[in-house]
Amino acid sequence: MTSSVLPEEVSQRVERFIAERRAESAREGSELSLVFDAATAATSGGKRLRARFCHTGWRAVSAPAQTEPAVLDVAAALEIFQAAALVHDDLIDNSDTRRGRPSAHRQLEQAHRDFGWASDAAAFGRSAAILLGDLLVAFSDDLFEGALASLDSPATARAEYARMRNDVTLGQFLDVAQESAWVTQDESTHADRALQIASMKSARYSVVQPLVIGAAVGGASRKQREALAAFGMPVGLAFQLRDDVLGVFGDSAVTGKPAGDDLREGKRTLLIAYTRQQLSGTPLRIFDDLLGDPTLDEAQVSMLQATIRDSGALERVEEKITEYAATADQVLRGAPLENSAVSDLRDLARAAIHRTA
Amino acid sequence: MTSSVLPEEVSQRVERFIAERRAESAREGSELSLVFDAATAATSGGKRLRARFCHTGWRAVSAPAQTEPAVLDVAAALEIFQAAALVHDDLIDNSDTRRGRPSAHRQLEQAHRDFGWASDAAAFGRSAAILLGDLLVAFSDDLFEGALASLDSPATARAEYARMRNDVTLGQFLDVAQESAWVTQDESTHADRALQIASMKSARYSVVQPLVIGAAVGGASRKQREALAAFGMPVGLAFQLRDDVLGVFGDSAVTGKPAGDDLREGKRTLLIAYTRQQLSGTPLRIFDDLLGDPTLDEAQVSMLQATIRDSGALERVEEKITEYAATADQVLRGAPLENSAVSDLRDLARAAIHRTA
Repeated sequence: MTSSVLPEEVSQRVERFIAERRAESAREGSELSLVFDAATAATSGGKRLRARFCHTGWRAVSAPAQTEPAVLDVAAALEIFQAAALVHDDLIDNSDTRRGRPSAHRQLEQAHRDFGWASDAAAFGRSAAILLGDLLVAFSDDLFEGALASLDSPATARAEYARMRNDVTLGQFLDVAQESAWVTQDESTHADRALQIASMKSARYSVVQPLVIGAAVGGASRKQREALAAFGMPVGLAFQLRDDVLGVFGDSAVTGKPAGDDLREGKRTLLIAYTRQQLSGTPLRIFDDLLGDPTLDEAQVSMLQATIRDSGALERVEEKITEYAATADQVLRGAPLENSAVSDLRDLARAAIHRTA
Repeated sequence: MTSSVLPEEVSQRVERFIAERRAESAREGSELSLVFDAATAATSGGKRLRARFCHTGWRAVSAPAQTEPAVLDVAAALEIFQAAALVHDDLIDNSDTRRGRPSAHRQLEQAHRDFGWASDAAAFGRSAAILLGDLLVAFSDDLFEGALASLDSPATARAEYARMRNDVTLGQFLDVAQESAWVTQDESTHADRALQIASMKSARYSVVQPLVIGAAVGGASRKQREALAAFGMPVGLAFQLRDDVLGVFGDSAVTGKPAGDDLREGKRTLLIAYTRQQLSGTPLRIFDDLLGDPTLDEAQVSMLQATIRDSGALERVEEKITEYAATADQVLRGAPLENSAVSDLRDLARAAIHRTA
């Protein structure tokens, strides 16, 4: 199976798993169809990037003739976990849209209205989305543990999966805290903090750990896992910096998110830290006043974009992305990995770094 | 170890686990101390009922000389999971208090204010509590899987744990949906729906599955697990019906929750279904108008309490509790369980059913 076929296979595996769970719960109450519909919607679409890193990590150490069910299940479990994280993330960020469609809590809110149910539809949407996220985490665990049961030594994969969950949750917490806590911190620490958060919630979670989990399923040696982690970290950091750039300058028609979403939300990214380093006095005060204001209009978003570009911060971040990409490329030379997978690793890194959505 | 010592042992185990996790993450950012403080607060206190059912289920099949680390870890994992469920539950129910103290999202909101952080403190509290719940679920899994690694055949315990998470999350979803969906349903189905929800979110989750998981850790036979489940189901249903009664008539000084909380929230319990069966016309309309109104004052709460009592619903529910307790008692006679644990099972059932908080 090449990387280009995998996303479709993973999507089918996810769909089948949720359909099985739906069937098992059919007698528990007709209202449950709502949460299973929402689970199906939340897990469909997306680039399946984590599944692809996982699968390629596996191929990089095992050079298999064909994909084994265990790695497909593990890859699907990572995608279900990611769907859970996005459901909670959209609640936290109060995002109305995801991939150009209403976010899960907004879909559930609308269902409440369509059904003609009593009381507050928006409150129901938020409550139901908390539980939907919890359910998807449980599904992800179940699929993952089911896959591990077929392995001779599942301990490494399980430990990496546990670390992944820990890192992404703590990273998200730091990210949310940083939106508020920055006012009380020494300004000289902002850039490092932004990189630390990017490392936890994104580089480790989205790239390093999927690669290493896939490799662990394939029976990787310690040296192989270390090589994949050394490759994955700069790829993952570049991936997050690209995300930061798209969150400010992305084309909403392509990203499926409103333009300037990160500005309204007040995300304290490296891009913002670099911008603020170049500002002082009134311009800094205006910048700080606008950033994180959920009611920013188009003109204000444009103004913030111009400030970020003119400060040189965008260029600095793009340079950093280029540096990280070069480092990742360098790591692959002479790494103890299967040659046939190395070019796919390069392709995947490019897809993660040079994207528009 | 007797049941009376266990809660303290479990609390110490939980505390030690969270302290270890805190130490591991110390270098990731000082703001993390906030989430670890919140994790410690959320996991402290409580009756440790699930841990005690788990431990007694284990003793009922293994008659051990002393508690093994594995069962203590599993019992602690169940308590951490319960803490996670309560953190999300208090968000869903918009509850300001838990066990007489501010609920987790309110504590986090207050911390935001105390630190002098920027932007919306209440929004931060809610966001941080979503992530705190996610983190506690991950902790629970990690502790559980760590314990299972020492068992020869962990499959049954793992499968029951997975079923537990599935049941409680779907049960909670049905519970939340029911607060809105009841208007569109045939009234004759309300009582059965309330019992179905009680079975999923409470009887199975709080009693049956802890018992069976503990028994599985102890290497129970299928017949032993079935006997524990047959005992646990009526105990668990009575436990939830007691909860419903306390949610309406409980003494806030003892429950640590405002009096009539379930009425403001509009929980569609068996107590409510029974009450509505006896009402029609204007009294029913008034009852429905008041139930679920978050702004109910003391006089309105008293009026609803009187309506529920006068309808005979309270008496019917108390009778049902007595019936369930008798059934549970009956099941234990001749069950293939260790005699030394059977009297503890009876004590635990009494503690779960005849409580005031």
